[in-house]
Amino acid sequence: MPIDQFVVHGGAQRSNIQRVRHPALGIAADGAGSSLLEPDRFFDSDPVIRRAARAIYEESRGLPLVCPHGHVDPKLLAENSAFPEPTELLITPDHYIYRMLYSQGIPLEDLGIPARDGSRATVDPRRVWQIFADNYYLFRGTPTRAWLDYELYDVFGVDTHLTSATASRIYDELTERLSSDAYRPRALFERFNIEVLVTTDSATDALEAHQRIRNSGWNGKVLPCFRPDATFRVAAPEWRSEIATLGKVCGREITAYAAFISALEERRAFFKSMGATATDHAVIEPRTDRMPDKDAESLFARALGGRATPEDQRRFEAHMLMESARMSIDDGLVMQLHAGALRDHNEHIYNRFGPDKGGDIPVRTEYTRNLRALLNAYGNDPRLTLVLFTLDEATYSRELAPLAGHYPAVKLGPPWWFHDSAEGMMRYRETITSTAGIYNTSGFNDDTRAFCSIPARHDLARRVDANWLGGLVARHVIDMTDAREMARALAYDLARDTYKLRATR
Amino acid sequence: MPIDQFVVHGGAQRSNIQRVRHPALGIAADGAGSSLLEPDRFFDSDPVIRRAARAIYEESRGLPLVCPHGHVDPKLLAENSAFPEPTELLITPDHYIYRMLYSQGIPLEDLGIPARDGSRATVDPRRVWQIFADNYYLFRGTPTRAWLDYELYDVFGVDTHLTSATASRIYDELTERLSSDAYRPRALFERFNIEVLVTTDSATDALEAHQRIRNSGWNGKVLPCFRPDATFRVAAPEWRSEIATLGKVCGREITAYAAFISALEERRAFFKSMGATATDHAVIEPRTDRMPDKDAESLFARALGGRATPEDQRRFEAHMLMESARMSIDDGLVMQLHAGALRDHNEHIYNRFGPDKGGDIPVRTEYTRNLRALLNAYGNDPRLTLVLFTLDEATYSRELAPLAGHYPAVKLGPPWWFHDSAEGMMRYRETITSTAGIYNTSGFNDDTRAFCSIPARHDLARRVDANWLGGLVARHVIDMTDAREMARALAYDLARDTYKLRATR
Amino acid sequence: MPIDQFVVHGGAQRSNIQRVRHPALGIAADGAGSSLLEPDRFFDSDPVIRRAARAIYEESRGLPLVCPHGHVDPKLLAENSAFPEPTELLITPDHYIYRMLYSQGIPLEDLGIPARDGSRATVDPRRVWQIFADNYYLFRGTPTRAWLDYELYDVFGVDTHLTSATASRIYDELTERLSSDAYRPRALFERFNIEVLVTTDSATDALEAHQRIRNSGWNGKVLPCFRPDATFRVAAPEWRSEIATLGKVCGREITAYAAFISALEERRAFFKSMGATATDHAVIEPRTDRMPDKDAESLFARALGGRATPEDQRRFEAHMLMESARMSIDDGLVMQLHAGALRDHNEHIYNRFGPDKGGDIPVRTEYTRNLRALLNAYGNDPRLTLVLFTLDEATYSRELAPLAGHYPAVKLGPPWWFHDSAEGMMRYRETITSTAGIYNTSGFNDDTRAFCSIPARHDLARRVDANWLGGLVARHVIDMTDAREMARALAYDLARDTYKLRATR
Repeated sequence: MPIDQFVVHGGAQRSNIQRVRHPALGIAADGAGSSLLEPDRFFDSDPVIRRAARAIYEESRGLPLVCPHGHVDPKLLAENSAFPEPTELLITPDHYIYRMLYSQGIPLEDLGIPARDGSRATVDPRRVWQIFADNYYLFRGTPTRAWLDYELYDVFGVDTHLTSATASRIYDELTERLSSDAYRPRALFERFNIEVLVTTDSATDALEAHQRIRNSGWNGKVLPCFRPDATFRVAAPEWRSEIATLGKVCGREITAYAAFISALEERRAFFKSMGATATDHAVIEPRTDRMPDKDAESLFARALGGRATPEDQRRFEAHMLMESARMSIDDGLVMQLHAGALRDHNEHIYNRFGPDKGGDIPVRTEYTRNLRALLNAYGNDPRLTLVLFTLDEATYSRELAPLAGHYPAVKLGPPWWFHDSAEGMMRYRETITSTAGIYNTSGFNDDTRAFCSIPARHDLARRVDANWLGGLVARHVIDMTDAREMARALAYDLARDTYKLRATR
Repeated sequence: MPIDQFVVHGGAQRSNIQRVRHPALGIAADGAGSSLLEPDRFFDSDPVIRRAARAIYEESRGLPLVCPHGHVDPKLLAENSAFPEPTELLITPDHYIYRMLYSQGIPLEDLGIPARDGSRATVDPRRVWQIFADNYYLFRGTPTRAWLDYELYDVFGVDTHLTSATASRIYDELTERLSSDAYRPRALFERFNIEVLVTTDSATDALEAHQRIRNSGWNGKVLPCFRPDATFRVAAPEWRSEIATLGKVCGREITAYAAFISALEERRAFFKSMGATATDHAVIEPRTDRMPDKDAESLFARALGGRATPEDQRRFEAHMLMESARMSIDDGLVMQLHAGALRDHNEHIYNRFGPDKGGDIPVRTEYTRNLRALLNAYGNDPRLTLVLFTLDEATYSRELAPLAGHYPAVKLGPPWWFHDSAEGMMRYRETITSTAGIYNTSGFNDDTRAFCSIPARHDLARRVDANWLGGLVARHVIDMTDAREMARALAYDLARDTYKLRATR
Repeated sequence: MPIDQFVVHGGAQRSNIQRVRHPALGIAADGAGSSLLEPDRFFDSDPVIRRAARAIYEESRGLPLVCPHGHVDPKLLAENSAFPEPTELLITPDHYIYRMLYSQGIPLEDLGIPARDGSRATVDPRRVWQIFADNYYLFRGTPTRAWLDYELYDVFGVDTHLTSATASRIYDELTERLSSDAYRPRALFERFNIEVLVTTDSATDALEAHQRIRNSGWNGKVLPCFRPDATFRVAAPEWRSEIATLGKVCGREITAYAAFISALEERRAFFKSMGATATDHAVIEPRTDRMPDKDAESLFARALGGRATPEDQRRFEAHMLMESARMSIDDGLVMQLHAGALRDHNEHIYNRFGPDKGGDIPVRTEYTRNLRALLNAYGNDPRLTLVLFTLDEATYSRELAPLAGHYPAVKLGPPWWFHDSAEGMMRYRETITSTAGIYNTSGFNDDTRAFCSIPARHDLARRVDANWLGGLVARHVIDMTDAREMARALAYDLARDTYKLRATR
């Protein structure tokens, strides 16, 4: 038997299930089999599991996309301009891609990544695309490969594999597609079947883009999320100008701690009026600890005088997480906590290209002791929802699942960032579920800046969850009725309910 | 093909193996197929693995249950009264169940959990049962679900799935069963085929219930285990009264360190005379460090004067672990160490309901440096057996397997608490075996307060181990002869031998 | 159906693939089926995965062995004497074996392990062999068992399973084999198809054995690796004599820091002239931190005066890692960093038998913060290659993969020591690949002192990688073309390229 024949055999096995295209994506829908994507990708080859996984995936694949946390620039949807060309759309904004290329010695300058000061080496985007294609093999086995394949072969209907030889032709094909109205951001939003897309916005943001979307008459639901981190970092050089800006958007100078707190409350109310249902907090260490008001006042005054120390900042951040939980109980905004990323580890890259350029590296993170103060104060209150994220998988079974499986306030966010992969999602389910079940998790979020990767990421998550559930069915841990309900919860209900995003339109 | 047909097909695959009921459980034995439990549950669907797993499981399924560590109240077996009704038997004493219900916002008061002061909201136990049934879906994919299913459908022979609709009828059915003599504790003990059941008892316990069991003429083997933790916690408010009680049971006041040590030795001898073969020690951090006698004496005196600090307690606990190992070498009691649970994390729950109410959360734990003093002093002595438990799975391959794979004294306890699940047991085997083999592990223990869950827990462990071994056979890592011997060791021999529990009756 | 029949069935499934012997191993090549090893060992039984794994393994199984890191004594190949008898060859030098026997209470004296002072209990090696055979069951499920089986049944062509009953006969058989020229070290080296074997040598080593190999006319490629650890440990009692030796090999006394640095540079140049392409550094904590030259000078002077503290050593080691990276950029030697082994945990064993006797236990390890100084100084420089190893698997996805997936200098070494097992390699691939891909890893190395285990270890790694890739193919994550290229990279190219070992002869 030729050694490759099993591939054919695998194909034969698949032939008895009818291929249904993603309902939101019309491009390749004209003919079954026109996509280069295997319909059974990410499903185990064991026939019992695969049959179950297919059936379960049928339950979730067509559900609308709920996107409660991400980093898409709302201007994209406010302006709704055509994307210029493929490199600008797919490579330049995706640090998953250029961190891998950089790790293999390709300078960011060669990829046209803009420098911190806005300057940019003159590079031909077609040349960047070629570099990317030449190095596409680096992504074998990574989620980036799975997402990109989906974008190319499904979203854009490319019908040739991306290789060095086909790069230029595909570049032209994509460029042509992008010039059509069907590939403008709002058209894609609708084709992706996005029910709601939440952005991440600084506390001082006037939400002008969100306002323009609302005023435009377009009924795509794009909501802001309140992220006040920069206003908590009292020892950062830019903190005082941040506070000045906060004062400006509130219409009064902030000269003391009490004014700061009321400014935050005011901004939260404004975000809420713009549809926000959540806040987001990013810290290295999730320390929580309330300071006496008096101490907070004097610390704040010291900071305004430019004399706050790193330890002051640690204490103030710990205090402000307490305050943020208190405010959440008052105003109902869901509180998200992303802990454990040491930002800008690579100073050379940071100095030259600025933040979010792939130089963030996780550190060991502790939740049990750090969150104790907050959870004792607010964790038994059913009005609080606290969604926890981690980059330290050792905490899944040790700390996070026990916390979520006990405190009414705690829900677990999906596998974050480096763990948003087929294997990472599987490890998450396998280590968290025994203690927390699935109903103390908050469903999927795509957490992406790369707009076109949104359906790819949801599809991967739905497939992996279907396959996980299929394995449980195959081992008789759950039955098919359970599995279908769980698939729907994981793909849709849990995100919508945790984040209070029930469709209202 | 209809999407559910594979379930039928799965059933067809199973039909060529004869179903044998657990020999100890007669209820459902009258007809094959009468139980709602799938006979192949927890076995991989791959046919080579499943066939191997079935064959291996046949080797271990009928072996007597050796229960070397657990928390069943010996009064249950001393009194041998009928269980009142299902809620009191299955819900109220099981923190796995009510922590999950609580995490979803159901107050413990609504579940009739007694408050710390003994008071208890008036709740109709049938209403609690209904709440439990309404929320049974929360346990999908958790071991609690597997255990409960086994208890309902196998131990109690219920032949309808538990749902909101069937809850009340099943409640009546269980109540009726419980009123028959066949469901009294001792009858169940015998039907469960328990060879020996070890309880956990404080150092000051008079072991009156154990005495009554011995005097009753019943030949069920129920042994105590010596747990002196409370006498080591010199900074705890209740410590002095604990020492007073220790003095009382020893018939003399304890006024100095030397008297404390000899009182402990005396109590150990008493426990041993009552059949104990082991001690148990629970600490947050497994620090071991011998103090000079002079320092121990003055610290103890300070503590008697009510002036011990938390740091004093840390040092004293570290010292007393050394002393406990020394005593074990003298008297042969196996030493168990359970490290890493931060007890009563949720102060609100603790203040209202007391300890063991689901508010314990694990913390990161270090064994390599912490145990060095003890292992250098006693770890090469073949007279010591030190069984280590962890809630921090990151230590499995990093610290625990290397320690157990080197020191003659060290054995590894089974996956503890949050890790006592199908996935948790699999991770344990997969990360520990390469370095420590299976013969440096101590077999299974159920560690439960929930008497009726004992056979369910052993059955799950035997299934998971059979499936793990079946996978090794399928990959030709071991052969079937190896697998059968290993299955027997994991299910029976290792627990019996590690804990020196060879049947003597 | 008899319960063992599936084994026969498994055999039938295998019969349609032609068995090809390892090209380098002639012994058992005379007849297919003569080896006791299952040809499909370590492959999943799922037929789709197994077929893929077989095909992928065919791509890598016959490739030459590149051995860029290990601990074989070069004298073995310089002298090329016949191995005396099986125990001296297989048991006495293998701490994987005797640590397991010791953990079960067998004294090292009974195994003829030489004491630290060179003395040795008089033991009959045949008796040691019998003890080993009697306890061979302890290794079930461990990699040691897989390696030993390969050595016995493949390298030595033994055709009976090792048991208590066959031990003596097999001992005789092995002894006879060892007396033939075909089993001398160089003959085995050639039969093993070793392309290059790198040893590990202290900075002060004159590389006399390497010189003899070069002078002998034999064209086996055996290269040194520069390991200067002992010269960095300023607080160790033997440090001053180490510096004296360093002075001696450099032909001048080392009386100051600057002379120390130039001596190291000189030794590196000498190692390089002898073919070295890499250095190796072992530390407990991978701290990196440059000291001002002035401070380094005074610390070094203090150390020469015998007054260095443990904290001085910590700082000096952190500084010397910086210096070593700087030197690597100058001279091109690849820098390896093995962190996290607490050596000689068991003082009793260390005092009696010396280092490397199984008493090393890993500790938690931190890379993100510790390596920041080094990576900021040198990690963006394409001239540096830094290969990182860990014993703390919690760092795989949290720290190491993100570092390797970003910094051009960082590559990840294969699963080290306790993790060099089928399960350990699988976990490594599954947690690292999503973020770092495979092209930021450095291929396999056997890291062994046990010369005859070299082909066994490479074969296990190639099988496990083939099976992992087969699983990806089965789930349509990669295709067979990808898989074949990846298998070749993992088995050969990555090790050769990372370590700059392109064959030049």
